[in-house]
Parts: sequence; C-alpha cells; structure tokens
Amino acid sequence: MNSQNIQVVLVNPSHPGNIGAVARAMKNMGLNHLVLVAPRKFPDPEAQWRAASAVDIIDNARVVETLDEAIGDSQFVVGTSARDRRIPWPVQDARLTAARIVERSVKEKVSILFGREDSGLNNEELRRCNLHCHIPTHPDYESLNLSMAVQIVCYEIRMAELEGTLPSDEDSHWENPFATSQDMEYFYQHLEETLVELEFLNPAAPKQLMTRLRRLYNRVRLDDMEVQILRGILKETRRVIREKGTN
Amino acid sequence: MNSQNIQVVLVNPSHPGNIGAVARAMKNMGLNHLVLVAPRKFPDPEAQWRAASAVDIIDNARVVETLDEAIGDSQFVVGTSARDRRIPWPVQDARLTAARIVERSVKEKVSILFGREDSGLNNEELRRCNLHCHIPTHPDYESLNLSMAVQIVCYEIRMAELEGTLPSDEDSHWENPFATSQDMEYFYQHLEETLVELEFLNPAAPKQLMTRLRRLYNRVRLDDMEVQILRGILKETRRVIREKGTN
Repeated sequence: MNSQNIQVVLVNPSHPGNIGAVARAMKNMGLNHLVLVAPRKFPDPEAQWRAASAVDIIDNARVVETLDEAIGDSQFVVGTSARDRRIPWPVQDARLTAARIVERSVKEKVSILFGREDSGLNNEELRRCNLHCHIPTHPDYESLNLSMAVQIVCYEIRMAELEGTLPSDEDSHWENPFATSQDMEYFYQHLEETLVELEFLNPAAPKQLMTRLRRLYNRVRLDDMEVQILRGILKETRRVIREKGTN
Repeated sequence: MNSQNIQVVLVNPSHPGNIGAVARAMKNMGLNHLVLVAPRKFPDPEAQWRAASAVDIIDNARVVETLDEAIGDSQFVVGTSARDRRIPWPVQDARLTAARIVERSVKEKVSILFGREDSGLNNEELRRCNLHCHIPTHPDYESLNLSMAVQIVCYEIRMAELEGTLPSDEDSHWENPFATSQDMEYFYQHLEETLVELEFLNPAAPKQLMTRLRRLYNRVRLDDMEVQILRGILKETRRVIREKGTN
C-alpha cells in the first residue's frame, strides 16, 4: 500500500463536526489526504475540536468546488453507497473494496468518495466510480453516520495493509514460556499429594477429581511462573497441614 | 449469533454525545443492549440527538453504579484495550474477538467493555476480562474516539455473523445475463466490418487494433443489453456511412 496515493473525498458535507471526526478516523488508520467538495461550513472550530490530534489533516485538507477538481487525476474511484440503484454497478463490501484499494494504491491514484449526511452520493456522482462500496449494516437501521462509514472503510484499509502480520494467537505476546508436559506432571503429582494430605481426595475413591483438575489446567495452559506460584501454594499448604498434624 | 446475549458496556463515559453515537453504531450493526456504568452526564439531549434513529437503545439502556452490576451474569467478558499492560493478558484483534463473541453468544451471556474517553479501562477492570480486544490503529495516532472503537467492534461482529453469506463477486446483483462467447464473436465481427467501412481499420495492415479492442471488451465482460447497445451503434454507423457513400 502507498497511503500517499489514497485520498478520502467528502462530497458536500454539512456538519463540520463530521469533518473533524473523519480526519481523526483517517489518521487513526494511517491515511492523510482529505478533500472536501463544497463543504457547507469549513473551516470551523467544531471540525478542529473533533479532529483532536488529527488537526494536521484538517489544516492540509484540499477544499474544492467540484467533484471534477477532486478526482480529476484519480485512476481508481470508489464510491460508498447505501442504497440499491436502478442500474446496478460493480459493488463490493468494505473488506473486499479495501483489499483492492491497498493493491491499486501501490501504483495508482485512488479516490474514495463519501456523500452527504442526509442523502449520500447522487446518481451522477456514483456514475463517476469504477466500483461502489457497500457496508452491510443491519436492516433495522441501515444509515451510518458519515464519519462512522469513513472509519469502517479506513479500518478495513488498515487491516488489509496488515494482512498476514497480525498474530492469530491470543498468547503471542506472553512474557513467560509455557510449562512443559513434564513440568505439568510434577505439578499434578504435587497437587494430588496435597489433596490427599488435606483429605479432600480419598485415594481409595478418587472419582474424577484429578481428571477434572487436569482438564481445567490443561485447558488454560499454564506458564512457568504460574506453575511456580501454584506449587508454592501447595508447598505452603502442606507445611501448614503438617504443623497442624503435630499439634 | 444471538444478539440478545450480547451487551455493550461503557465504563464511566464522559460525553453524552459519545453515548448517542455508540447507540447508533450498535443499532447499525444489529446490537441492542447498552449498559452504562456511572456515566458522567446521562440522560442528556446530546445523547438523544446523536443516537438519531437509535433512541430506543438509549431509552432502554441499563444504568448502573458499578462494573459488578453490569457484568455480574456474563459468562464471557471482553475488554477493549489500547495500551500494552505490565502483565500481558490473552489478546486478539477485533476481527478474531468478534468471531469468538458471535460463537459464544449462541449459548452464553457476553459483555464487551469500553473504557473512559481519556484513559480507557483501568487495570482492575481489565483483570475482570477473559479476553482483551485490540484494534490495530496506526502508530502515528493510536487513540480512537470511544464511539469509533465501538463501531469497529460492532461492525466486526456483524461481519462475523454474515460470514460466508456476502457475495464476493462484484457483479452478483447484475440485472442482465452476461454475453456468451458466441455473442461476443458476432459483436467483434460486426465491429471489425464497421471499422473497415469507416476506413479506420485497414485490412491489409490491421496491426493490433482488433486485439486491443478484444482485450478491452473481454476485460469488462459485456452483458446482453450492452452488446445490443453497442451493435445498435454499429448498425447506425454503417447506415450513415452507406448513405454518405451514395451522395
């Protein structure tokens, strides 16, 4: 991906707050080029405030009067669209659209168009696009806030850029190595002896107690430190049992 | 997925506008249960306004004083977290987290915790979680707006719910059948004849003209209607050429 080749184009945005929220949404996901086509109210302090630490994007936004000026040099134009159109257009969801944007941005200039808060992009604007992007909202309430739509598309671009680099393992940043099978056997032996001494486990009728405890700790995968902590507790427990025994 | 088993929990939200935006973000993605833990300012007209057509979620939000009351009956608790913690916790990105939430919600009560606007969830709150969820923002500006974080997680839940049902083909809703290979051959023949009559194509030195035109139209895949339109133009062109020829 080349983020320098990607621009987000807001067509006739009404609320400066949305412009600010869009700037922040973009910067959070690594995009920086914002174009505003005939915004109703801009610049505006509300846009600055909502942009938070993305005011640079607001300050560097290109403000133009027409869509032609905004996308004239773009080689791949995507339009976000909520509604079904009379003439269907090539359409993809935000995830598949993002994959294409990331790929094409390497060598080509890409524009992503977002429409007005109340009515989206009009048919003429949508006809300027190579691809329409649809976010599959729930039928109970389909209409996304403008900045939310931008956030989702920018997030998908970020995810597409990161593809294959994110860990799938929930333990990938663990600070301690996980216990070995041998360590676990010593632990279970220690645990069983302690439970017998506690008279919680009756060796003559052990039932499924050790099996259940093995299932618990094997399910969680203990790390080295955790095994040490648990064995420390067992050791201390046995010490107390023995002291009590001598009373 | 059972959306009735999923609740979004905002811990100490400061801005009523964010609460409204969260309600809308949830409803857009098919979630309805919002819990507010000690909100600074709620109810508030700003929350209503930003919720737009999701005021029902605001009106039905459960407001409690403590996290215990919020998540007491949850069987799977996810906490969203931006920062690295001293003690690492099981962590997944929003996509993998959403897959788990969708799966577990079928039978279990799930809570998704979002922290304060300025400081997120504190360590004690994060320790209440089974899993931490991380949204991989760009290092230039990592801090997402609260409602944007909710939007992304809810969007991923919606996408996980829809998995395998979304069309991957950009033409999946096309209104006309695509032209057959035979239709295309008739079209190319018609086109070539017309170009010869136009004296744009010299049959003695055709160069790569027809190859380039074939590459163009084969790349785009024409539908039946489009072939008819193009052949109509060709027919009309030939008529004009012949009329001119008789002058």
